[in-house]
Amino acid sequence: MNRILDTINSSKDLKNLSKNELTRLCKEIREQLLIYLSQTGGHVGSNLAMIETTVALHYLYDSPIDKIIFDVSHQCYTHKLLTDRKKAYIDPNQYTSVTGFTNPKESEHDIFAIGHTSTAISLACGLAKARDIKKEKYNIIAIVGDGALSGGEAFEGLNNAATFNSQMLIIINDNDMSIAENHGGLYQNLKLLRKTEGKAECNFFKSLGFDYYFVKNGNQLYDLFDTFSIVKNIKKPVIVHICTKKGKGYELAEKYQEDWHYMNPFHINTGTLIQQSNDNETYENLTRDFLVEEMRKDSSIIAVTAGTPKIFGFNKQLREEFSKQFVDVGIAEEHAIAFISGIAKNGGKPIFGVSSSFLQRTYDQLSQDLALNHSPAVILIYFSGISQGSQTHMGIFDIALTRSIPELSYLAPTCQEEYLQMLKWGLEQTIGPVIIRVPGIYITNRDVQLLPDYHYVQYEIVNQGSQIAIITLGNFLELGMKIKEELEKTKNIIPTLINPRFVNDYDEKTLNHLKSNHQLVITLEDGVIDGGFGEKITRFYSDSDMKVLCFGAKKEFVDHKTIEEQYQRNHLTDQQIILDILSIL
Amino acid sequence: MNRILDTINSSKDLKNLSKNELTRLCKEIREQLLIYLSQTGGHVGSNLAMIETTVALHYLYDSPIDKIIFDVSHQCYTHKLLTDRKKAYIDPNQYTSVTGFTNPKESEHDIFAIGHTSTAISLACGLAKARDIKKEKYNIIAIVGDGALSGGEAFEGLNNAATFNSQMLIIINDNDMSIAENHGGLYQNLKLLRKTEGKAECNFFKSLGFDYYFVKNGNQLYDLFDTFSIVKNIKKPVIVHICTKKGKGYELAEKYQEDWHYMNPFHINTGTLIQQSNDNETYENLTRDFLVEEMRKDSSIIAVTAGTPKIFGFNKQLREEFSKQFVDVGIAEEHAIAFISGIAKNGGKPIFGVSSSFLQRTYDQLSQDLALNHSPAVILIYFSGISQGSQTHMGIFDIALTRSIPELSYLAPTCQEEYLQMLKWGLEQTIGPVIIRVPGIYITNRDVQLLPDYHYVQYEIVNQGSQIAIITLGNFLELGMKIKEELEKTKNIIPTLINPRFVNDYDEKTLNHLKSNHQLVITLEDGVIDGGFGEKITRFYSDSDMKVLCFGAKKEFVDHKTIEEQYQRNHLTDQQIILDILSIL
Repeated sequence: MNRILDTINSSKDLKNLSKNELTRLCKEIREQLLIYLSQTGGHVGSNLAMIETTVALHYLYDSPIDKIIFDVSHQCYTHKLLTDRKKAYIDPNQYTSVTGFTNPKESEHDIFAIGHTSTAISLACGLAKARDIKKEKYNIIAIVGDGALSGGEAFEGLNNAATFNSQMLIIINDNDMSIAENHGGLYQNLKLLRKTEGKAECNFFKSLGFDYYFVKNGNQLYDLFDTFSIVKNIKKPVIVHICTKKGKGYELAEKYQEDWHYMNPFHINTGTLIQQSNDNETYENLTRDFLVEEMRKDSSIIAVTAGTPKIFGFNKQLREEFSKQFVDVGIAEEHAIAFISGIAKNGGKPIFGVSSSFLQRTYDQLSQDLALNHSPAVILIYFSGISQGSQTHMGIFDIALTRSIPELSYLAPTCQEEYLQMLKWGLEQTIGPVIIRVPGIYITNRDVQLLPDYHYVQYEIVNQGSQIAIITLGNFLELGMKIKEELEKTKNIIPTLINPRFVNDYDEKTLNHLKSNHQLVITLEDGVIDGGFGEKITRFYSDSDMKVLCFGAKKEFVDHKTIEEQYQRNHLTDQQIILDILSIL
Repeated sequence: MNRILDTINSSKDLKNLSKNELTRLCKEIREQLLIYLSQTGGHVGSNLAMIETTVALHYLYDSPIDKIIFDVSHQCYTHKLLTDRKKAYIDPNQYTSVTGFTNPKESEHDIFAIGHTSTAISLACGLAKARDIKKEKYNIIAIVGDGALSGGEAFEGLNNAATFNSQMLIIINDNDMSIAENHGGLYQNLKLLRKTEGKAECNFFKSLGFDYYFVKNGNQLYDLFDTFSIVKNIKKPVIVHICTKKGKGYELAEKYQEDWHYMNPFHINTGTLIQQSNDNETYENLTRDFLVEEMRKDSSIIAVTAGTPKIFGFNKQLREEFSKQFVDVGIAEEHAIAFISGIAKNGGKPIFGVSSSFLQRTYDQLSQDLALNHSPAVILIYFSGISQGSQTHMGIFDIALTRSIPELSYLAPTCQEEYLQMLKWGLEQTIGPVIIRVPGIYITNRDVQLLPDYHYVQYEIVNQGSQIAIITLGNFLELGMKIKEELEKTKNIIPTLINPRFVNDYDEKTLNHLKSNHQLVITLEDGVIDGGFGEKITRFYSDSDMKVLCFGAKKEFVDHKTIEEQYQRNHLTDQQIILDILSIL
């Protein structure tokens, strides 16, 4: 039998199908996406869960006139497949022609580039406002997962959306999971609503003023048709609360939902990874082992995550063992920072782990809730630096983001030994907040000079030379070493190599001392140059004869380029840097 | 009759009073605070509203063992007066010994320094977590205004608080007002709860899992006693929803609640200001007049505020006239940025006005929701630069905050003419987001060279000289002119004076050209130096012989110091700068 999928080229083609055929199409899409996901990796759980909803929406509504916004866009594969990008999910040669997120550059059906959670309702409010003021008539639809509802921006959006006197459909895709389990009072209400099939009087959404509809089986196409057909004509904001199953149709993903939220390429039959990684040698696991040991000894250590418990390497078993000392606050980074400030203020020892990209949500909390209050909390920044990932998950901004905040220590360890020393010190000190930039994914070791107390700023002279000083931040020490060796070997120059340890502070003695027998300082940082560490060094020397060259990332959004390509573009290969050095000397 | 107030020296003294005496004390505090407020200025409305609640709490609980957190702390005067700082509210010579916000440096009864809204519940969660892990027994109480509930951080806090299995009291002080009227679906629920005296089944707080109590008259001491006495023994999170009257006891403040949210010193009898200011000459009113004219001509212009409509000079009458084009989203800065991105994406022309200090809430939204999506929206930053205000409302961070975000234009006009030109251009252009730094409170004028299109970076040469170039950002042009004149007069040096117009971009031609006959560049900016504009200039010249000196604000929290004192401390007086210049030449 020929596949219906093969006859579909755009969402318009769905209109000609019978409901039976649409059901068959969902099955075919599920099979196809599973093949695709198994070969490329990606967000398995949410994409398999949202096939029926997406097909129903594209059947009943007219994208792109009607505008569908996918929150965080982890669930957009079916949408992309149905909107002019089918080959990207079928033809292995075209897999890389699309990203895993919605992106207006790919299609007019993607309204926004989205990769951070909890934004879709607010964005949809803006679309609706412009539509109404221009007196245009079409539908605006935001699709939001239950996990995203804990984020403040989602609530702010709901609060404003409820005041509109015009059409806005907000679909709450409730699979009873965030990346891991959900956390927060709201989820008891969702549970109650599931249990009562939406009939409970005490209803979070109704309390905000929304019309509310419940769909018990959100993986059942006909049920979705029934409800969407009703709400389509309602000229005010409506919540449709649909229950779906994360990983729907792939047994392993249904059973182990947290593991299958995102998966690298895998064998469909067994679910095993195609490329096994050596997980033991990561900073995640190093941190886990350290924390487990310390938390057993000291019950006042409290590890906090905002919806990403795996960042600490804490699986479900460990989370249960440390149920009092391990707190997942849900996707709520702002709250997490204020929360650790409160813990620290009252004598606890909080440690919060967060991706560089999601730290972006917390500037004001870092400043007002934490630093202004001198709360001794530790924050670990993961996934910082240039990476191959999405433009929505870049890790290059954390230094520039935090550098202007007073009373905030920011340390950049270069290896395992230094990382652990800073971590221990950070938890024990009682002066104020300390951020530590986790130096990459995989552990490196070296013979490092440790400090007993990181309140006294002192840079590490890794190699004493002359003429040129290379100051390398954190994980970029390796690059610095390469340049040093190359200069020694080919140019007979023995440069000084410095690990500054401190992102935000000058070691004035060391920096001044360089003036006596160096003529050039180069700074290397795995982050954006604008507002970054290197600029701070240029300011130090700006009234002297010392020349300074800053190397780091250009200020731009970069979408899925290889690291090599980005290093090249940013003049970050050892050869490029050496040429730049020689052009100055 | 002697005042009871005169016999009270600390909150402990309340315990010996009868309830009758406590009622009298409230009256006396109200009279005293009104005198104080009339002489110093301050948050009139909320402080007059919260006298009874604060007295009741200090009578029934034991601060500082029990910990009371005041959200935004606009309502903390009675608390401060009752906790060792009475003289500051009675003796005019001691008025300046306290600030208008809670501050641990003043008293152990103040747990946090707080001035931004929506943080108290999250901070209280942290205190409770540490208390519980240490197995300590005392009460934690967060007091939150209804206006603050629209902020995402408050919701994130509520969502986590509801999961605690231990005492936490959250008092919702509902006076049916934010600074102006409230906005959002939540407020319909508060209205319903007020109408039903807390009995409505559909209850926002209950939906999150809280125990809920309602106090109809939150300015009635006995009613507060009754409810607080019940909830004191409840070992789980409880909401007490109290209804108070903003400005209670001062007729004018009760009647004109928005005007009396914050008031400068006034005559008690008439409510008129002691020092009349010439309001017509402000950038707020200039912006209002511009917007009113443009919005009448073009219905696609939509002005957005996050709870501070007066920032645009829009009073109630104007808000009503432009009910479709003027949107107050409530205290919800994150939402505001995503909202304007959505409006712009769909063909509207949004303009958002916000204080520099509150822009801090929006880094991630500026990056992900707005800049990444190239949405042509205009953001006006008010109250930027060094000011005499609270450490919680500093305006020096906006440049460093935004400088690392790609695809974001940031313009710093120097005068009325340039401001209006940039404003007009910003609304008409369709390339991407534009931030404009409003150049102070009062309008200045000059003979400025305007650009037709601010997508092409070009600095303005205000004066062509040699040897020294002074690059001054925005409102600091005036300081630059003073220095220029002084150098001409006393040192016979004619410096080049440059208005860079662009905060984030180099005019490479101009900067390179300076190399030919200048040996020193100085940068002047009304903002923090770390990560600021000046550092960007030092980087430009870091591989050349040009010397650069950066002038701006030190990276530190500053609490209520005079502007003169801060200029002195930051080396920002013309005389200090000239000495620094001469020491280099």
